[in-house]
Amino acid sequence: MSRATDFNPVTYTPDHFRWSFGDDGVAVVMLDRPDRKNPLTFESYAELRDLFRTLVYADAVKAVVFASNGGNFCSGGDVHDIIGPLLDRDMRGLLEFTRMTGDLVKAIRSCPQPVIAAVDGICVGAGAMVALFSDLRIGTPRAKTAFLFTRVGLAGCDMGACAMLPRVIGQGRAAELLYTGRVMTAAEGEHWGFFNRVAAPEALLDEALALARSLAAGPNFGHMMTKTMLNQEWSMTLDQAIEAEAQAQAICMQTRDFGRAYEAFVAKQQPVFKGD
Amino acid sequence: MSRATDFNPVTYTPDHFRWSFGDDGVAVVMLDRPDRKNPLTFESYAELRDLFRTLVYADAVKAVVFASNGGNFCSGGDVHDIIGPLLDRDMRGLLEFTRMTGDLVKAIRSCPQPVIAAVDGICVGAGAMVALFSDLRIGTPRAKTAFLFTRVGLAGCDMGACAMLPRVIGQGRAAELLYTGRVMTAAEGEHWGFFNRVAAPEALLDEALALARSLAAGPNFGHMMTKTMLNQEWSMTLDQAIEAEAQAQAICMQTRDFGRAYEAFVAKQQPVFKGD
Amino acid sequence: MSRATDFNPVTYTPDHFRWSFGDDGVAVVMLDRPDRKNPLTFESYAELRDLFRTLVYADAVKAVVFASNGGNFCSGGDVHDIIGPLLDRDMRGLLEFTRMTGDLVKAIRSCPQPVIAAVDGICVGAGAMVALFSDLRIGTPRAKTAFLFTRVGLAGCDMGACAMLPRVIGQGRAAELLYTGRVMTAAEGEHWGFFNRVAAPEALLDEALALARSLAAGPNFGHMMTKTMLNQEWSMTLDQAIEAEAQAQAICMQTRDFGRAYEAFVAKQQPVFKGD
Repeated sequence: MSRATDFNPVTYTPDHFRWSFGDDGVAVVMLDRPDRKNPLTFESYAELRDLFRTLVYADAVKAVVFASNGGNFCSGGDVHDIIGPLLDRDMRGLLEFTRMTGDLVKAIRSCPQPVIAAVDGICVGAGAMVALFSDLRIGTPRAKTAFLFTRVGLAGCDMGACAMLPRVIGQGRAAELLYTGRVMTAAEGEHWGFFNRVAAPEALLDEALALARSLAAGPNFGHMMTKTMLNQEWSMTLDQAIEAEAQAQAICMQTRDFGRAYEAFVAKQQPVFKGD
Repeated sequence: MSRATDFNPVTYTPDHFRWSFGDDGVAVVMLDRPDRKNPLTFESYAELRDLFRTLVYADAVKAVVFASNGGNFCSGGDVHDIIGPLLDRDMRGLLEFTRMTGDLVKAIRSCPQPVIAAVDGICVGAGAMVALFSDLRIGTPRAKTAFLFTRVGLAGCDMGACAMLPRVIGQGRAAELLYTGRVMTAAEGEHWGFFNRVAAPEALLDEALALARSLAAGPNFGHMMTKTMLNQEWSMTLDQAIEAEAQAQAICMQTRDFGRAYEAFVAKQQPVFKGD
Repeated sequence: MSRATDFNPVTYTPDHFRWSFGDDGVAVVMLDRPDRKNPLTFESYAELRDLFRTLVYADAVKAVVFASNGGNFCSGGDVHDIIGPLLDRDMRGLLEFTRMTGDLVKAIRSCPQPVIAAVDGICVGAGAMVALFSDLRIGTPRAKTAFLFTRVGLAGCDMGACAMLPRVIGQGRAAELLYTGRVMTAAEGEHWGFFNRVAAPEALLDEALALARSLAAGPNFGHMMTKTMLNQEWSMTLDQAIEAEAQAQAICMQTRDFGRAYEAFVAKQQPVFKGD
């Protein structure tokens, strides 16, 4: 697309992953190299980053499911396509790469749509980071999640892992996963709060879609503001955060969805939200 | 009361909720519209805010239990008394309201007394926020807690929810509750660390009172400082927090309670703390 | 030692605790008054602080186990040797002490080696803080951990407890432990994420050593950076943290261990890391 405002979710056809979009406002993204457990490449990183940045302007898209494909979520940066070439780069080139990967998860956090990761099978490295920076996560019993940067000779601090993982599962458990690179089982992931729930593999996509649809049918302006403030308050004082929410919620009280909910309540009906 | 320093916990008689105070230094607050599951109103919000602000000067009050009434904790802002009128307000009026609600939880965090929420039955909306911003929470198996702002067309960022809830139950679980507005069961609440424990409904108040009495009998100056620093360090660096605690604890080492504990230990007795 | 750079882990012989160091790069520290459950004294505090500060320059030391001795980890500051004398100090003297204790945990966080606490039996007061500020923790079923500052008339805010404990086990559970000073059982510690795992007492040291050896054999430069960033991002915004990790990981991509991992992968071998 030439400009962000030209984005049409119905006709959008990415080059390096799959995209679908339904009448319900739910988009589905999935990597598309299932024979190799869906590695990321320079090209798919960049195109995903551009997509999530563009979603800021895509009002028709109300929620996003980042789905698995062929029984796996994502095997992370490809060893041959990414790690090999990185070894030939100088510092400028390396930083260009690590910033691109960071920009992807920044874009996932910054788009207004709730993002739901539907995680089956392998979910490692940068793939685990995509899941971690999604808003919600549904796993399967066979999901294997590993922040395995240490296994390739690097540090656990990749794409914001040391900031986000402790907030999701606690500092002690995060430290173990980041130092050792070991697999977090699905049972651990559910017990520790990484997965919001675990579904059977054959039900995974349907459960993620149902959750996405329920959010898409909700007050989208409010959801956008919830997501914004979960980011925004990250390093505020508690009093600053409370004031920030007083302002944010006052803004939301001027949306029509607030009135719609009230009118539906008085009429003893379910509200129908429209996102404005 | 005309001035904060005039506050007398024995004679205090609020207009919009119930208050009791015992020789043990423990105060009990409860909303008092059990037939409607104890909604909050403009008047009870404001009077609760004023109470918790005044408690800063109420040395005789050592701990507070925010209790349930008639099998429910609080049904949140009343739809007819609050949401209806808000729809007619302009931005100045809306912000006045959201700041008042924020000021209530700020005041709960800022008073020196530990606040224990005893949560039975319905605990939703602003009621869930009162419980969340209490220091400790005891639930019952039938407690139903929901941050249901999204259900009334608003955002999950209300009264500091996006700052506090992730710290209590983790970012992933908090996001689900804030986006969906769904009920957190008592079992989830206990498993996730929202409830410190779950008690039978008929034992709830007694357990909360026993815990409150044990804290009231503790080193109150120290408890005040613990509470202060849990707020104060919210957005410090780790090194700043360690220095801040070095200062705070050095101050506490000049209280008489520190000497009392030592003398009791040497005499092989239980210390009797007096809060100075 | 006269200068930090003179530190030799093979010949190092501390005065106030035990130290051992093996060919595997793993050092073991343990307090050495098992008959009294290993209390800390002014002297052992200071010498431990100096040791962990020196470890910044001890390249041969790759990981540290802080071990239990005689069935107990540490009984905290000794009542007779520490609390008694503190009662005679003025504010300058008290602050000197609280800063020394804070400097110990700062040094544990600041040394480049992962520190693993192997916690058996009593682990209370300052001992609980040493465990809390270690990177990883293995307990035993009989481990009893208590942040019992309140029991000696003080506040729960000691040595950074109000900053770190909520990040490890959540704000609600941390508040209970800090206000009440009660024992956290081993089962709670494992369920809440304080302990990474629980081992039988007779297997505790071996499990901690095995974990330490696996980290010692890892990419040490990367581990140092993981630890650095877990501290560094504590109060950053999320976007700042992601940029900080882009820089940190780009630095790690210039280590030889990154190339070693790639070459081993291509050769279908296990990588042998050397830490440079």
